[in-house]
Amino acid sequence: MTEIKAYGAETNTSDLKEMNIERREVLPTDVKIKITYCGVCHSDIHTVKNDWKGSKYPVVPGHEIIGRVISVGNKVTHLKEGDLVGVGCMVDSCRECSACNDNLEQFCENGMVGTYNGKDKHSGGHTFGGYSESIVVDQHFVLTIPENLNEKEVAPLLCAGITTYSPLAHWKVKKGDKVGVIGLGGLGHMGIKFAHALGAHVVMITRSEGKEKDAKKLGADEVLISKDAEEMNKHKGSFDFLLNTIPVKHDLNPYLQLLKRDATMVLVGAIEPLEPMHGGSLIIGRKSIAGSLIGGIKETQEMLDFCGAHNITSDVEMIDIQNINEAYDRVQKSDVKYRFVIDMESLRS
Amino acid sequence: MTEIKAYGAETNTSDLKEMNIERREVLPTDVKIKITYCGVCHSDIHTVKNDWKGSKYPVVPGHEIIGRVISVGNKVTHLKEGDLVGVGCMVDSCRECSACNDNLEQFCENGMVGTYNGKDKHSGGHTFGGYSESIVVDQHFVLTIPENLNEKEVAPLLCAGITTYSPLAHWKVKKGDKVGVIGLGGLGHMGIKFAHALGAHVVMITRSEGKEKDAKKLGADEVLISKDAEEMNKHKGSFDFLLNTIPVKHDLNPYLQLLKRDATMVLVGAIEPLEPMHGGSLIIGRKSIAGSLIGGIKETQEMLDFCGAHNITSDVEMIDIQNINEAYDRVQKSDVKYRFVIDMESLRS
Repeated sequence: MTEIKAYGAETNTSDLKEMNIERREVLPTDVKIKITYCGVCHSDIHTVKNDWKGSKYPVVPGHEIIGRVISVGNKVTHLKEGDLVGVGCMVDSCRECSACNDNLEQFCENGMVGTYNGKDKHSGGHTFGGYSESIVVDQHFVLTIPENLNEKEVAPLLCAGITTYSPLAHWKVKKGDKVGVIGLGGLGHMGIKFAHALGAHVVMITRSEGKEKDAKKLGADEVLISKDAEEMNKHKGSFDFLLNTIPVKHDLNPYLQLLKRDATMVLVGAIEPLEPMHGGSLIIGRKSIAGSLIGGIKETQEMLDFCGAHNITSDVEMIDIQNINEAYDRVQKSDVKYRFVIDMESLRS
Repeated sequence: MTEIKAYGAETNTSDLKEMNIERREVLPTDVKIKITYCGVCHSDIHTVKNDWKGSKYPVVPGHEIIGRVISVGNKVTHLKEGDLVGVGCMVDSCRECSACNDNLEQFCENGMVGTYNGKDKHSGGHTFGGYSESIVVDQHFVLTIPENLNEKEVAPLLCAGITTYSPLAHWKVKKGDKVGVIGLGGLGHMGIKFAHALGAHVVMITRSEGKEKDAKKLGADEVLISKDAEEMNKHKGSFDFLLNTIPVKHDLNPYLQLLKRDATMVLVGAIEPLEPMHGGSLIIGRKSIAGSLIGGIKETQEMLDFCGAHNITSDVEMIDIQNINEAYDRVQKSDVKYRFVIDMESLRS
């Protein structure tokens, strides 16, 4: 048996078979999905390694889930057997609070239920994610995937896609806006695609040289090397919007200088302490810095429909589940263009 | 002669008479003002002490200026001899750029001209502020003061007033909103008055106990002691808007926790590096932190008219110019309720 470090890290390795953890019976509003593909998100690794504390083992990661409906409860309205569907970062929420009523289940005031490592009200234990053969999810949290899209490449839209689409939509990025996407990884490459599809003039902002060709292929109009003070100065005060996908601690000040008066930079990557910000970076020019977290279910469906209409998918590298440990090592070295997707058939073989 | 440290700090003390620095002749669009009162702003001290670098000596501070028009140029349209007028932090700007066209001269792309220590295009030297007998200013930068207000108490509206009014107006604070005003000094006491007049439920947020009575007199409905973790927790996620007037380096995270989803905290005080912010403080709840700098001339006039209509002025302590050094010492110890105003008649005696 292959020991999967992914499944519980060093503290709790296990064999592949345990990934097929038992799922609940299909309740009236439930949908049972045969998982075909599952994307590998950096959050999976953080949870496996207990970086954010609170990880419950065994961890079955995976919240970029694609599959086909294999059965539905008798109160399921909009889905049927055979439908191509997706499940993202959430599988439940209270559906009564002000956030849920505003279609922002990710901010549920009673706590949204994460697709893995969340508090499962059915089992009383914790939820298990998409590195598995199947999953049972309430219909409200099951998305419909446009059939014209390449199924394998759709998986990362459920997390990386909505994480970058939502702020562009919420802050109303439009045709002709000058938009900077900071960081070229799983999130950044989707940010470029969406901003380009929205008609923006897209500038890929990165510390590393040599990414120009790739960035332009994704839809960037320009590449700005953030280490080049002279180039940064040329772009000073010129951006309508900045999407900051950097996943680690960094200095915000040089990026804030790039914003126009009254413009906003949105953080989607760094859920950790940042380097000290200068008050003047915001006060001079009445600038804003904000955060954004995935997106609500309604907006996730809108994003998927937008992808269907514009033929947008993720750039992926396919792996078998047996290669998950190597994939994790490579994600941590940013050595993937731009998202690993697991062919879940490999778990069945 | 009294040596005034205010006037050039240790590097360049001077006597009172030198404050009556020569002013330019009255040009066609100029207004000459006999200064009656001038507020003492913390910026005056920063400039005198060269804290922000770039101070040019001799410094004549003062950008909360009240006075009467004594003469006008032949192209002056809306002001005449005898009018009660004010001058705030700016005396010029390019009036052609996008910021100026948007009535936001404070963000003039070619650089607004500060009332003191700014680059004076007329003299070729630097500008001199309101600790003086008179001043000559282009009519565009001269505000009309409602005659029903107490003249002495109006001076601080020109800086502390507009600095706090502008963000409340720009972020559309309205009746019933729960608004927190952080810090009770020159800025904070005006923030409370304005938020109260706008119909908000106002919470004064302060580190120090014992300010409850004063805060309530100013219009606060509640006082929240930021050092009390239990109290802070009770108010978590409940504020529609936070006006942060703290003038020094501080930790933003505890305040960001107080904001509702999608709400904003605006910095108006700390033009300096802040303590590290946690990305999650913004990402969880899609919160924003922004900055705001005084206000444009049009909005400053709106603020003064609002004050006229609601009978709002500053709480002041009157001093003679001969006591300026002691006043500076007390400002630095936050020992003033809430703004010193100099009776400029004392310079004439």
